[in-house]
Amino acid sequence: MMMQKWRRSGDFIRFGRKSLTNLRSKEDSVSRSVSGFVNCCESKGKLFEPNAGNHNTELDHRCPGRNLGIMQQYKCFGSSSASQIQRNPLFSSLDSNDVSYFKEILGEKNVIEDEERLETANTDWMHKYKGSSKLMLLPKNTEEVSQVLNYCDSRRLAVVPQGGNTGLVGGSVPVFDEVIINVGLMNKVLAFDEVSGVLVCEAGCILENLANFLDTKGFVMPLDLGAKGSCHIGGNVSTNAGGLRLIRYGSLHGTVLGLEAVTANGNVLDMLGTLRKDNTGYDLKHLFIGSEGSLGIVTKVSILTQPKLASVNLAFIACKDYLSCQKILVEAKKNLGEILSAFEFLDNNSMDLVLNHLDGVRNPISSSENFYILIETTGSDETSDREKLEAFLLKSLEKRLVSDGVIAQDINQASSFWRIREGITEALQKAGAFYKYDLSLPVEEIYNIVNDLRGRLGDLANVMGYGHLGDGNLHLNISTVEYNDKILGLIEPYVYEWTSKHRGSISAEHGLGVMKANEILYSKSPETVALMASIKKLLDPKGILNPYKVLPQSFFSP
Amino acid sequence: MMMQKWRRSGDFIRFGRKSLTNLRSKEDSVSRSVSGFVNCCESKGKLFEPNAGNHNTELDHRCPGRNLGIMQQYKCFGSSSASQIQRNPLFSSLDSNDVSYFKEILGEKNVIEDEERLETANTDWMHKYKGSSKLMLLPKNTEEVSQVLNYCDSRRLAVVPQGGNTGLVGGSVPVFDEVIINVGLMNKVLAFDEVSGVLVCEAGCILENLANFLDTKGFVMPLDLGAKGSCHIGGNVSTNAGGLRLIRYGSLHGTVLGLEAVTANGNVLDMLGTLRKDNTGYDLKHLFIGSEGSLGIVTKVSILTQPKLASVNLAFIACKDYLSCQKILVEAKKNLGEILSAFEFLDNNSMDLVLNHLDGVRNPISSSENFYILIETTGSDETSDREKLEAFLLKSLEKRLVSDGVIAQDINQASSFWRIREGITEALQKAGAFYKYDLSLPVEEIYNIVNDLRGRLGDLANVMGYGHLGDGNLHLNISTVEYNDKILGLIEPYVYEWTSKHRGSISAEHGLGVMKANEILYSKSPETVALMASIKKLLDPKGILNPYKVLPQSFFSP
Repeated sequence: MMMQKWRRSGDFIRFGRKSLTNLRSKEDSVSRSVSGFVNCCESKGKLFEPNAGNHNTELDHRCPGRNLGIMQQYKCFGSSSASQIQRNPLFSSLDSNDVSYFKEILGEKNVIEDEERLETANTDWMHKYKGSSKLMLLPKNTEEVSQVLNYCDSRRLAVVPQGGNTGLVGGSVPVFDEVIINVGLMNKVLAFDEVSGVLVCEAGCILENLANFLDTKGFVMPLDLGAKGSCHIGGNVSTNAGGLRLIRYGSLHGTVLGLEAVTANGNVLDMLGTLRKDNTGYDLKHLFIGSEGSLGIVTKVSILTQPKLASVNLAFIACKDYLSCQKILVEAKKNLGEILSAFEFLDNNSMDLVLNHLDGVRNPISSSENFYILIETTGSDETSDREKLEAFLLKSLEKRLVSDGVIAQDINQASSFWRIREGITEALQKAGAFYKYDLSLPVEEIYNIVNDLRGRLGDLANVMGYGHLGDGNLHLNISTVEYNDKILGLIEPYVYEWTSKHRGSISAEHGLGVMKANEILYSKSPETVALMASIKKLLDPKGILNPYKVLPQSFFSP
Repeated sequence: MMMQKWRRSGDFIRFGRKSLTNLRSKEDSVSRSVSGFVNCCESKGKLFEPNAGNHNTELDHRCPGRNLGIMQQYKCFGSSSASQIQRNPLFSSLDSNDVSYFKEILGEKNVIEDEERLETANTDWMHKYKGSSKLMLLPKNTEEVSQVLNYCDSRRLAVVPQGGNTGLVGGSVPVFDEVIINVGLMNKVLAFDEVSGVLVCEAGCILENLANFLDTKGFVMPLDLGAKGSCHIGGNVSTNAGGLRLIRYGSLHGTVLGLEAVTANGNVLDMLGTLRKDNTGYDLKHLFIGSEGSLGIVTKVSILTQPKLASVNLAFIACKDYLSCQKILVEAKKNLGEILSAFEFLDNNSMDLVLNHLDGVRNPISSSENFYILIETTGSDETSDREKLEAFLLKSLEKRLVSDGVIAQDINQASSFWRIREGITEALQKAGAFYKYDLSLPVEEIYNIVNDLRGRLGDLANVMGYGHLGDGNLHLNISTVEYNDKILGLIEPYVYEWTSKHRGSISAEHGLGVMKANEILYSKSPETVALMASIKKLLDPKGILNPYKVLPQSFFSP
């Protein structure tokens, strides 16, 4: 069954100059299911955002939030500003009456004081951010979330909403002693409509469980992430997770049809529509998509899922220059438009890194080239999809946009191609110290920042670029022998300033969390950030929801 | 060229029991370009929302906004509540100093006091709503919009933002003497990126002009409306216009990447990002998409356009029952998934109406059936797309979901098929009085409301259903000999209550405007509406922006 999806396309397997005979060797050590390989291709890319080192850069006049207190409560490898936060003195401290109240509401076993469990819940999965909460609450339903929040608000107890705790910017763990509200027990599928494809579920559903549920119905989730085995749909929505399928199905702002959220004072907002079209008033659910739990706790989600399509094809191609990559993207959108499901790129430095540091990985293109692209198609008709992809690639070859390439003939080959793209962060870790940025930029600018940074850093570091080219999302990596202030000083704020100058985003898909809360002005105008702060104050006047995150603290004078 | 797009598919032209030999006759009186026929299929459906008659229904306890004053300033054919609005006494009245100031800012010729031009600007295009504004302002850029609004806010002069004035719910004309701010002079394309497909333009660009501009670049807008020759992109965004391509490209919440808006006090919010991914803080642009100009005036828009695809096919099929329609929709999503670009349905009553009242229209299916469906595909490969559509239809025929059908073989046939779908409202007008509703409902419920209403109305009226089945959007039509209170009393609030009970939307794509502002609670929870009102107060404390619209006035005690 699996093999059928990767039928040999004999005419194309060697459409370039180079031999691909070694493709079927033992290199394909990663064995995954079809859904597995599709799902995992961004896992490593998503799972690290170190900017490792514990340094401060000079204050930036555009970032009023940087000039804060100096108490450092948590370990910080990240951005400078995150190391300078004071606990808000207006927040109460937990006492035994609070704990008793919570036990009354939630039952003894769902009020967690156990040190070991708290240690886990206080720590993000990268062990990069760590809080010191003394309590984790596990509500079973919306009403309990409401009661808990209402109480916390009245007592001015700060809280941190938590899902699968797979975030990359310190958004899902406490900074100080915030009460952790984990929605993991709210994990029921509430409804699925096979006609419309609309799924309604509780926020604590693990993404992979939803994917498995849908698979039995012949549907797929419109998003897919490397962290899917742990992350919750509520967390996905709250962080506006991007992931692999964005190029095909768009962002959660388009696919989430409705949600239920509880605001800081326990107010339950029922916005759980299941309709594709509804123009009755302001579409407030969008405030909660991507606000990282700082405006409310998402408790239920309604999402448009997609029919599972039978045919998947994957090509790995090489290009001489970045301009060719760009041109191929434009052509692919035109010629593969409706079946294009991934368009990823990496440069030769990234390829070399993977080849040098990971076992069993080989370049499918037998000699090296400056750039590589993975093009995946997903459609309903295997024969025509494959023909379409082959025709497109041959045309690109004739136009000399492509210098060589292969189409995977089975799941193992496909896995081996994805392994290269996935393996970059793993290889980075093995190579030594590294600084990593997740940027959105206009496609034509994407590689300029890589080149500029190379010029700036010279022999001090190895600068690499790869990412979701189809979405304009660059993962910029700088690999060095060791972390040091000089190199970081050359990188930051240069990278942020460069990104800002080109109207890019300093966080394409990871959010701001505590790591980049004070850097928001690099990507958003002061007037817009001021309005965000006003909306935060409107929905959470006491500021108890996920404090110190998303927005600069300077907007909230105690 | 055109003809090639509708190549004969000989095997399928007569796949059913009935002869289709008359298809190539002179019936195809509507001659349009390919883009034309694609674009126009919803024109009539979009262009009327009469609920004609000037009646009041009983007050509904769910609609606190209904119990207002009784001064009736404007002609009202619509919903009961719209007839009961008092001018907000806190608003100032225009004086000569104001006019002088505006002339200073905008120049004499862009301050319109001419009665004829004001008559046009005061009246919606259906001649259903009419205000009595004494002044229309034509700013040329964002700064002028900002200056004007800042002044109006300081003087507490109410304003109505106006684009192409093609709205259907009285949202784009004054209710009383509001100053009209028309952005028609702001009509420049600012940038287009052929790599990403991102278009940036001013709000006053006419949709069709943008479509024509993109056509030269090989791209299409992600939305298309019947009103495209007049409507502005700023108005489209402000009303979250739906239209024809929603099933394929999703809503504007997904395709609008950024915008610039000016709030009531003249504050310019630069949210004009051009990135597909940007997770830096709250995505505030969504507040302005669909808020009908009540939170700010959209001045610039950045939108993701799509490559123009070469192959378009259109099938017209007949089904015995609604359940079959539903099943075909599910199968079409699975089997045509990536090329499906329209899925429209009409019932036999709608077909009969068109056949009885419009000249030159024939049923492509030679004998009548209970339901008809139009399925359009758009893709990059003509041969494979057509084969896919044919295979799908033959399979549906074998499964007895379809009783008969045809695929258009040229542009004229395609036009004649669309003519039936488009012609319904025109035919309704010719048939006499009619009541028309634009509802979103779960697909499985869509035809139940038609049947229930038939039972309720008996011989009093002819109840018809048609619409965008693929989006769950029903256009419910009730045709009668003449308007009368008894019939309206049987329809309203029954239709709204029925819709509410099934978690539907009382406005799928037209918005609320002044017509349904007080009916919002049928589709949104009180807590959500209260939050909307708080956000309105936050962004527009004096309530000068498009007053009396979108939200119930009861939320804004003077």
